[in-house]
Amino acid sequence: MNYSEKLQKIVSKNKSNVVIGLDTDLNKIPEYFLKYKDPVFEFNKKIIEITKKHVAGYKLNMAFYECLEEKGISALKQTLAAIPNDLLKICDAKRGDIDNTAEMYAVTYFDKYDFDAITLNAYMGKDSIAPFLKRKDKVVFILALTSNSGHTDFQKLNIGSKYLYEEIIEKSLSWSKDNNVGFVFGANHTEEINNFTSSNPDVPLLIPGIGAQSNDLKNLISNLHSNSFVINSSRGIIYSAEKNYNSNEFEPAVRLSIMNLKNDINKYKKENSLHNQST
Amino acid sequence: MNYSEKLQKIVSKNKSNVVIGLDTDLNKIPEYFLKYKDPVFEFNKKIIEITKKHVAGYKLNMAFYECLEEKGISALKQTLAAIPNDLLKICDAKRGDIDNTAEMYAVTYFDKYDFDAITLNAYMGKDSIAPFLKRKDKVVFILALTSNSGHTDFQKLNIGSKYLYEEIIEKSLSWSKDNNVGFVFGANHTEEINNFTSSNPDVPLLIPGIGAQSNDLKNLISNLHSNSFVINSSRGIIYSAEKNYNSNEFEPAVRLSIMNLKNDINKYKKENSLHNQST
Repeated sequence: MNYSEKLQKIVSKNKSNVVIGLDTDLNKIPEYFLKYKDPVFEFNKKIIEITKKHVAGYKLNMAFYECLEEKGISALKQTLAAIPNDLLKICDAKRGDIDNTAEMYAVTYFDKYDFDAITLNAYMGKDSIAPFLKRKDKVVFILALTSNSGHTDFQKLNIGSKYLYEEIIEKSLSWSKDNNVGFVFGANHTEEINNFTSSNPDVPLLIPGIGAQSNDLKNLISNLHSNSFVINSSRGIIYSAEKNYNSNEFEPAVRLSIMNLKNDINKYKKENSLHNQST
Repeated sequence: MNYSEKLQKIVSKNKSNVVIGLDTDLNKIPEYFLKYKDPVFEFNKKIIEITKKHVAGYKLNMAFYECLEEKGISALKQTLAAIPNDLLKICDAKRGDIDNTAEMYAVTYFDKYDFDAITLNAYMGKDSIAPFLKRKDKVVFILALTSNSGHTDFQKLNIGSKYLYEEIIEKSLSWSKDNNVGFVFGANHTEEINNFTSSNPDVPLLIPGIGAQSNDLKNLISNLHSNSFVINSSRGIIYSAEKNYNSNEFEPAVRLSIMNLKNDINKYKKENSLHNQST
């Protein structure tokens, strides 16, 4: 089963286009987790337990695992094993390197860890992306227009009559015929999302930047003409509980956040008659 | 002591601008290393032992360590500990992410592992680089013009009268006044290296792409007007021994490769009267 089929199946089953970003930071999780031998894994396991019927999958940001050295890799592997098989596992790594190095990354994140998708940076061109594209059931999310303020520095430079990010999209779509090239668009770029999805409704999209980077969800959904999108929320869900919460307070806080986000997205999708296309 | 001071000191002591890329691959190292509990570390330790008086430092490509999961992180940490303090440790990671993630990477690679420099991808703009630049004694090597064939896809796109890589260089140099922004130029781009170093002799450069990616070393050096460069060779040095070599055959093969490269660079530097500027 390839990425798109897996996505359609889980969106249909869980009625949710949300992926939760497990950017788990020991300094931010409720203190009661710190008593465990592996607090990051225990926290993630609990988040997965609470949310797994209300999401399309999880996105794991590698920076938060690399930071914990060997223990981080162990937490990463255990977390992946705790995610039910029918949910998406997205590796947020933003890699991009020469061919033999890109192949090593593809072996690690696609073959060994069995992620369904990975975020990549295309600055080094086709041969830096090709090893990932050979794994046809997987998807690469190439950075297009990111949510941070620095997106203005290079992504919107003019290349003739196009922006740089549009040139990257156009060229990288030509690198594969397997619909396994997708893109990252920050949730704040609603006009550009509208333009892109109007003509490319089936290209996989990963949309971060709601929640902690708060953007107008209703406005986003009304501009989103996509049959293959996931919306990521990291801090907005996993840190919805305060640090001094106990387990009885933690669970309802997280449940409330994910239910609100899921339901809001579905409400706005319905308002925009997107419902039938995406579920 | 900051990066530039450390570089000048070691170049002067070891008479070498070479960094060796420890892209250590279990499938390529001499088989006798495989009997050790940690073959990657044992191989790296031996390479360091043989070469440490003939190099400016070592570059570790994260892909080759991530691929080995927990064991790779352990090998990475032990390898870093085996590198003498006066030699440069360069992290080849090509990261680039939003501010809170970039901060996590900076904590990991600069604060915890104490690398002297890291390779970064600037596509996400200033805030993705800023956390690294706060560590003023360290250097970031931003991808400018890379050695792989894919460099033509985006790096040489025209932005008005400039190439994209030139725009990246110009903008990122404006982000810091501490001479801690450097660049990656592939060794094949001799004309562009000439142009850049003629007007920016003190900006740190990391030059890969000789050796396995064979380029004309003499031509490179004659175009290099830099007081702050290192030339990386990975496969050309560490795989100069065949897989079936024993320890008595391995050491002289590696020693010969590094001495040849070091001496060739010094000979060409002398021919170009660069010698006095860089040592």
